[in-house]
Amino acid sequence: MTDRISLEALNAADQAGFVAALGDVFEHAPWVAEQASAARPFPTLAALHAAMCAAVRDSDPARQLALIQGHPDLAGKAARAGTMTAESRGEQASAGLDRLSDEEFARFHGLNAAYRAKFGFPFIVCVRRHGKDSILRQFERRLANEPAAELATAREEIFRIVALRLDQRVAASDRLPVHGRLSTHVLDTAAGRPAAGVAVTLLELCDDGSSREVERALTNADGRTDRPLVHERPVPIGRYELQFSVGEYFAGRQLAVTDPPFLDVVPVRFSVAEPEGHYHVPLLVTPWSYATYRGS
Amino acid sequence: MTDRISLEALNAADQAGFVAALGDVFEHAPWVAEQASAARPFPTLAALHAAMCAAVRDSDPARQLALIQGHPDLAGKAARAGTMTAESRGEQASAGLDRLSDEEFARFHGLNAAYRAKFGFPFIVCVRRHGKDSILRQFERRLANEPAAELATAREEIFRIVALRLDQRVAASDRLPVHGRLSTHVLDTAAGRPAAGVAVTLLELCDDGSSREVERALTNADGRTDRPLVHERPVPIGRYELQFSVGEYFAGRQLAVTDPPFLDVVPVRFSVAEPEGHYHVPLLVTPWSYATYRGS
Amino acid sequence: MTDRISLEALNAADQAGFVAALGDVFEHAPWVAEQASAARPFPTLAALHAAMCAAVRDSDPARQLALIQGHPDLAGKAARAGTMTAESRGEQASAGLDRLSDEEFARFHGLNAAYRAKFGFPFIVCVRRHGKDSILRQFERRLANEPAAELATAREEIFRIVALRLDQRVAASDRLPVHGRLSTHVLDTAAGRPAAGVAVTLLELCDDGSSREVERALTNADGRTDRPLVHERPVPIGRYELQFSVGEYFAGRQLAVTDPPFLDVVPVRFSVAEPEGHYHVPLLVTPWSYATYRGS
Amino acid sequence: MTDRISLEALNAADQAGFVAALGDVFEHAPWVAEQASAARPFPTLAALHAAMCAAVRDSDPARQLALIQGHPDLAGKAARAGTMTAESRGEQASAGLDRLSDEEFARFHGLNAAYRAKFGFPFIVCVRRHGKDSILRQFERRLANEPAAELATAREEIFRIVALRLDQRVAASDRLPVHGRLSTHVLDTAAGRPAAGVAVTLLELCDDGSSREVERALTNADGRTDRPLVHERPVPIGRYELQFSVGEYFAGRQLAVTDPPFLDVVPVRFSVAEPEGHYHVPLLVTPWSYATYRGS
Repeated sequence: MTDRISLEALNAADQAGFVAALGDVFEHAPWVAEQASAARPFPTLAALHAAMCAAVRDSDPARQLALIQGHPDLAGKAARAGTMTAESRGEQASAGLDRLSDEEFARFHGLNAAYRAKFGFPFIVCVRRHGKDSILRQFERRLANEPAAELATAREEIFRIVALRLDQRVAASDRLPVHGRLSTHVLDTAAGRPAAGVAVTLLELCDDGSSREVERALTNADGRTDRPLVHERPVPIGRYELQFSVGEYFAGRQLAVTDPPFLDVVPVRFSVAEPEGHYHVPLLVTPWSYATYRGS
Repeated sequence: MTDRISLEALNAADQAGFVAALGDVFEHAPWVAEQASAARPFPTLAALHAAMCAAVRDSDPARQLALIQGHPDLAGKAARAGTMTAESRGEQASAGLDRLSDEEFARFHGLNAAYRAKFGFPFIVCVRRHGKDSILRQFERRLANEPAAELATAREEIFRIVALRLDQRVAASDRLPVHGRLSTHVLDTAAGRPAAGVAVTLLELCDDGSSREVERALTNADGRTDRPLVHERPVPIGRYELQFSVGEYFAGRQLAVTDPPFLDVVPVRFSVAEPEGHYHVPLLVTPWSYATYRGS
Repeated sequence: MTDRISLEALNAADQAGFVAALGDVFEHAPWVAEQASAARPFPTLAALHAAMCAAVRDSDPARQLALIQGHPDLAGKAARAGTMTAESRGEQASAGLDRLSDEEFARFHGLNAAYRAKFGFPFIVCVRRHGKDSILRQFERRLANEPAAELATAREEIFRIVALRLDQRVAASDRLPVHGRLSTHVLDTAAGRPAAGVAVTLLELCDDGSSREVERALTNADGRTDRPLVHERPVPIGRYELQFSVGEYFAGRQLAVTDPPFLDVVPVRFSVAEPEGHYHVPLLVTPWSYATYRGS
Repeated sequence: MTDRISLEALNAADQAGFVAALGDVFEHAPWVAEQASAARPFPTLAALHAAMCAAVRDSDPARQLALIQGHPDLAGKAARAGTMTAESRGEQASAGLDRLSDEEFARFHGLNAAYRAKFGFPFIVCVRRHGKDSILRQFERRLANEPAAELATAREEIFRIVALRLDQRVAASDRLPVHGRLSTHVLDTAAGRPAAGVAVTLLELCDDGSSREVERALTNADGRTDRPLVHERPVPIGRYELQFSVGEYFAGRQLAVTDPPFLDVVPVRFSVAEPEGHYHVPLLVTPWSYATYRGS
C-alpha cells in the first residue's frame, strides 16, 4: 500500500509517465492507458476507471477481441509454467487456482478447451470475487451463453479486474466500490454483555468436503474482532463456516454447566452471494441457546 | 418387544419359572433372581428391580466381587472371539465397540489391562448410556478411583445394565426411568407456521473427526418428526449434530433468495450429558436467521 | 356440559323429541329442526349441522329472510330490556355488548339503524368470534356490501352461531371445528430449562385504550400453564397482551441482576385474526433478552 | 454548547477570571474554584474536576457542611418560588420536579422535612441521573443511613452534579465519564436487511401508571435512528418502553399478512440501572416473531 501513486501525481504526469504507471492494468494493452490519459485530469478514481473502460468500449471490435485474447487461461499451463504477469498470478492464487490437484487441473483444462473452442478466447473471470467452486460454476454456466453475450461478459469481468488493480495501485480521495466485508459480534445474552475472549475461526468450505481456514481471531471487550474477518477486498462467493468456541468462554465464567457442556464449538454455516456486500453475522449466545442472523 | 413377559406372569410363576425368565439379567448370576423371587409379588417393575439390587447389596462381599468378575472385558477378546452372552454382545455393539480399529482395540486392551491390574476385576459400564468417546473418558477417570469407591461404581453400573434389560424383557404398568429422548421442531418464523418437509439428519460426532448417522427424518405438518429422533432408550452421552436442510425448504416456497442462498444446511452441534434427559432442540428459522435452544 | 344430549339419543328420539331438543338453535325457527329431523340418523355432529344448514339453504327466500329478521339487534334495546333469548344474551355478553357505555350504545344504535334501513334486516354476526372492536369494524365494512352478498353473509354467520350452540348442546364422537386455542410456554434459556412459577396474565386490549383481563395463570414445571389460556371456544378476533412477570422469577433464582432489573414484566402484544386458529405464543427469556413468536 | 470556555483559556486566565468562569459550579461556594485555581495548569478536564473535588475533601468539616447546606431542597419551596440558581432549576426540571402534583409535592415536602430533621442538611442527589420514581426511592433509602455515611454520600452527589456542569461549560480534549446512551436498531430478519422507516417511540414509565414521551424517531437505511435516543447526558434510572411500529413497516412491504396483522406496535419494556451505561436495545423482527436483548 505504501507505494501507491496518488491520483494527483497521475493527473500531473506526462503521458509517458501515466502509461508507465497504469499501462499494464489492462493485460498486455498499454493502449488503453494511452487513450485514457487524454481525458485527464480525473477528479476521482471512479472517473479514471470510467475513462479507461470507455476507451475499451469505444475501440473497434478487433482490438477488443485482441484485448480479451491477451489474457491467460484460468489455472492453465501459464499458471504452472510461471509465465503469467505477477498480478494475474496473485489473483489466481487468491482463489486457490495455484494449488489444484491433478484432477482439478484436468477439469479446468477441459473447461478451458471447450470454452476456447466455442468462443475463440480464454475464459475470463474476476477471480478475487469467487471461491474455487464458484469459479467452476461460472465456467459451466457461461459455456452455455451466446457468443455475443459472452463477449460482453468477458469485457465486464476485465473491468472488474481493472477496478481491483486500480484500487490497489492508486491513492485517491474516493474508493471504488470493490470491497465487501464479513464481520461478527458475540453477545452473552445470559449476562447481558459482549462476550470477550471468544475464539472465532472463519473457514471457507469446498464442495469436495475440504475446508480452508480464512481467518482466526479473538473477540475483544466489545464482543467484536479488532478487524472485520474479511475487509478491503471482495468477499469471494462461496460457502463459509464461522466457529465460535463458546464452551471455553462459558467455562471461564465459572457457570454451573453440564459435563460435557450442551454447547461447545458453535458452527454457523452460510453462503456469500454478493462479494461487495456487508455480511455481519453475529451470535447471541447463552450456555443453552443461540441465535444468528444476517445483520448490518 | 412382542415376546416380553408380563410382571403378572412372573409373579404367578413358580421359583424355577421365575429364575428361567430372569436368571441371566445379572451376568452368570442366577442366584440373584433366586433370592429376589422370595420377595414376590412385585406391584411394579421398579419394585422387582429394587429387590434384585437389594439381593446383591445384601450378599457377602466375596459373592459381589465374583458377580463383578463374571463380566466380560469391554471390547475385549471375548468380543472378538464371539464368546460373550448375546445381551452383552448387543450392548457393546450399540456403542460401536464391535467395530473398533486396531488402534482403538489396542487402546481398550491397554486400559483393560491397567484396570484389572489395579482393581482385580473388569471395567464395567452401562454402555448403552455412552458413546465410544464417553466410554474412554469414563475408563480413564475411573482408573484414578480408590478401589472401594470403584467397586461401588461397578455395582451401580451393573444395576443400570440390569434396569435396561428388565425394561426390554418385562411388561408392566410402570416403566423404569431408563429412557431419554431427543426431539426437534422446525418453525418458519418468516411465515409464522411450522416448517413441513424439512429433511433432518442426526449425526453422532466422534473425537477422531468421524461421524455416524443416527437418524434421518422429514418434518411433518406440525414441524416435528413423526417420532422423536432418539427415544425408548438412553441417549448416549456424546456430541451430536443436527443438520436441517432449510435451503431446500425455502427454495420450495418460491421466496426471493440469493444464489447461493444465505442459509442452506444448518448444523446445530450440542452434547448430551444426561442419558435419561429430554433433549428438545428446536430450530426457529427464516431464510436469513435462526435460533436454537434446549427446550422442553 | 354435564347435561349435553347425546347424538345417539337425538337419532333415537321421535320428531317431537328432536325438535324439543334442538328447535331453538335457530332463533325462533323450529321448522329448521323439523325438516332436518327427517334426515336422521346422523353419523356425526358435522352431518347434523350440515343437514340443518341445508334445510335453511333449500327453503324459499321469504322464509330465509324471516329467519334472519327473527334475530335481535346487536346490543340493541332487547339487550337492555332483557327480552332476548337466553342464548343470544349469553353470546352478546361474551363480547362485552351488555356492558356498553352510553356513547358505545349510541354508536351501535346508529349502526343498527343504518343497517336496517339499507338491508331490511338486523345485523347478525357470530359474536363469540369477535371482540367489541372487531364487531364494530365488521359492522362498518358490511354496511358497504351489496344486499344479495350481505344476505348470504348473514346466513353464514347464523350457521356459525348454530355450530357453536350445537357444540355446547350435543355430545358426539366428533367435534365441530369451532374451537381455537391460545397458549404459552416460558423457557429460561439462561438455565436451559422451563421457567416454572412465572405469573402470566392475558389481557384483551380495546381501541379506546382500555383493557380487560381474560386469564391469569402460573407456569408449571414444564413452563406451561396447566390449561391453555383460551380453549374450548373461538379466540375472539382482537388485540391481546400477554404479561410475563419474569423479574420476580429471576429474583427468585438469586441471580446477580441490576437494581432495578433490566427486565421485569415483559409485555407481548399481538392480534388474533383466525378465531379457530391455534395461537401458541412462547417466551424464551434470560434476565437480559427475550424472544417470542407464533409457534405451534 | 457554543459558548463553552476552553480548558486552555481557563488555564491561561488570572485567578479572578478563573473564578468568574467556574465560581458557581459548586453552589454558593466560589472558594472551591479559588483553591483549585492554584493547581493550574490542568492537562485535562478530568484533572480540573479532580482538583475541585480535592479542594472540598481537604477543607475543614464545617466548611463542607456549609457547602452542603447551601443547596436547595429538592422540589422544595425554592422550586415553586423561583429563587433557585438557574442551573439547579434546569436540573430539577429535567427530572420533572417542576411539574409535581400537589400530592407529590406534599410527599417531597414530608421527605425533605424528615431528612433535614435527621441530618441537619438538605437531601442532595444528582437529579439528571434519575427519573422521579428513582429519586423517591433514593430519598427513602438514604433516610435510613447513618449520618456520617450520608454526609459522604451527599458530597459525592455534589461531585456528580459538578461533573455534569463542567461537562456543559468547559471544552477540552477529554470528556468526563458522565454520559450514557440509549440506542436501538431494527433488523428485518425475514428479509435479511435493516428495517428502514420504522417509527420508534421511547416512553418513560412512572410508577403511578403515567408515561412521558422522551423521544420519537424513524429508523434510517441502516435500521438505526440518526442519533441515539438518549445521548450526551446520563440516562435517568427508571423504567422505559420502546414502541416499534412494525405493523406499518410490514404493511408497506406488501407481504401477505393476516387482518389484523399478528404484530402491530411491539412494546419493549426495560429498566435502566446505570445512568452512564450504554443501553443498546435492538429488535430482530419478522411479521410473526421478534427478539430483543441488551446489546452493545
